[in-house]
Amino acid sequence: MAQFMDVHHDMRGITADQLREAHQADLAIEKDENVHFERAWADPESGTVYCLSEGPSAEAVQRIHERAGHKADEIHEVSLSI
Amino acid sequence: MAQFMDVHHDMRGITADQLREAHQADLAIEKDENVHFERAWADPESGTVYCLSEGPSAEAVQRIHERAGHKADEIHEVSLSI
Repeated sequence: MAQFMDVHHDMRGITADQLREAHQADLAIEKDENVHFERAWADPESGTVYCLSEGPSAEAVQRIHERAGHKADEIHEVSLSI
Repeated sequence: MAQFMDVHHDMRGITADQLREAHQADLAIEKDENVHFERAWADPESGTVYCLSEGPSAEAVQRIHERAGHKADEIHEVSLSI
């Protein structure tokens, strides 16, 4: 299993409710790809959302995000962390 | 206090030791600006590093990173998180 940070742009104005709903939509189906979404952070002003996840591949993470209706713009495998 | 995600590009090939040293350099002086660096994640392949911090402003976070020798390329206040 690897860890991933993915980034969504163009989420300007996202609310706490919308962030929670989007995260719940990922959690509801993440097991299909053996992925787990751990955390998410949003900057409503610039419209940037960061998601931290664990899973077998970036493609698996993206498939969950796509099915949940919010494809990531970037996904980076973060093999180092503190 | 607010929470921030900052991003460093051009860190291609960063090692676990280098990430730890950079993080320690931030921790050593963070109190000067009432900032705390909580986590850091690195993708050595693309050269991207993400740092999660808490502090009074993006400028305060940047001052610590600059003094520690690694100015951030982007700093986003992440006012929402899960």
